[in-house]
Amino acid sequence: MSIQRINPGKRWSDVTIYHGIAHFVEVAESEPLGDIREQVSAILAQADNKLQRIGSDRSRVLAVTIYLTDFANAAVLNELWEAWFPEGCAPSRVCVKVELADPQYLLEMAFVAVAE
Amino acid sequence: MSIQRINPGKRWSDVTIYHGIAHFVEVAESEPLGDIREQVSAILAQADNKLQRIGSDRSRVLAVTIYLTDFANAAVLNELWEAWFPEGCAPSRVCVKVELADPQYLLEMAFVAVAE
Amino acid sequence: MSIQRINPGKRWSDVTIYHGIAHFVEVAESEPLGDIREQVSAILAQADNKLQRIGSDRSRVLAVTIYLTDFANAAVLNELWEAWFPEGCAPSRVCVKVELADPQYLLEMAFVAVAE
Repeated sequence: MSIQRINPGKRWSDVTIYHGIAHFVEVAESEPLGDIREQVSAILAQADNKLQRIGSDRSRVLAVTIYLTDFANAAVLNELWEAWFPEGCAPSRVCVKVELADPQYLLEMAFVAVAE
Repeated sequence: MSIQRINPGKRWSDVTIYHGIAHFVEVAESEPLGDIREQVSAILAQADNKLQRIGSDRSRVLAVTIYLTDFANAAVLNELWEAWFPEGCAPSRVCVKVELADPQYLLEMAFVAVAE
Repeated sequence: MSIQRINPGKRWSDVTIYHGIAHFVEVAESEPLGDIREQVSAILAQADNKLQRIGSDRSRVLAVTIYLTDFANAAVLNELWEAWFPEGCAPSRVCVKVELADPQYLLEMAFVAVAE
């Protein structure tokens, strides 16, 4: 079985898919990046787009690792996060504090989702 | 194929299962949380419970990411960890230092396991 | 289906494989460890070796989580990283700053790859 990739670049592919499982990672692509509300909203909208492109949706996310740079931003993150998932469809979740390469980024999310 | 979830809440599901693979994340649920020995013991007991509920066991863990808040706790973690896995059944493992949302939590573990 | 493991030790297995998917984690095994260029080169060579042992190669990596201890080392990491993957075959990627157990280690990489 072959690996499918969306936008394979030199450093990463936007999505890799194999055997019905997709991996993708999002940081906000909003311009300007904005505050935590704008960045979480942007990431979740980008995830919607990725999921749609692989024939999936919000109800088919298996696991997410959230890398947050400041837990002061957790309340807004959680508010938007909880509103995004359909009832009964939340994934397994890790949320830890790390530093990201560009300090303008307030969070990064790594998704594992069903792609079929 | 459908996704199975155990205790799907608004923020996360305790376990997600798809195509025979389970994702679950544990922090100690002991009351009080206790020291590193108590928290590691609690997490491994919770993992036993989760694995049993999905028809699996300690010998069928594929990968674990350990988020530890202080490497001074690594020796106790490793002692209990090594005693927990049956001979020849240790998973792939990452152990990194991060901050967790609640400073009372000394570690968090994210599991990928076989569920069949 | 059974789980295959390479070098199962008490604390971890070098590789776990199930249903065509491999998990493995690398820190540099060079002696001495050396600087970031030496450590990244060592990790990528070790990954080549692991992939070869499981009947895979650089073109079949699905996702990598890079744990870097200092973003000052990101430029060298990215230079070697981008040269390593065949055109069009980069995986999904996370790169975050954390602390590792031994401060001599400048980075650690967790791989998810196809094993068939």
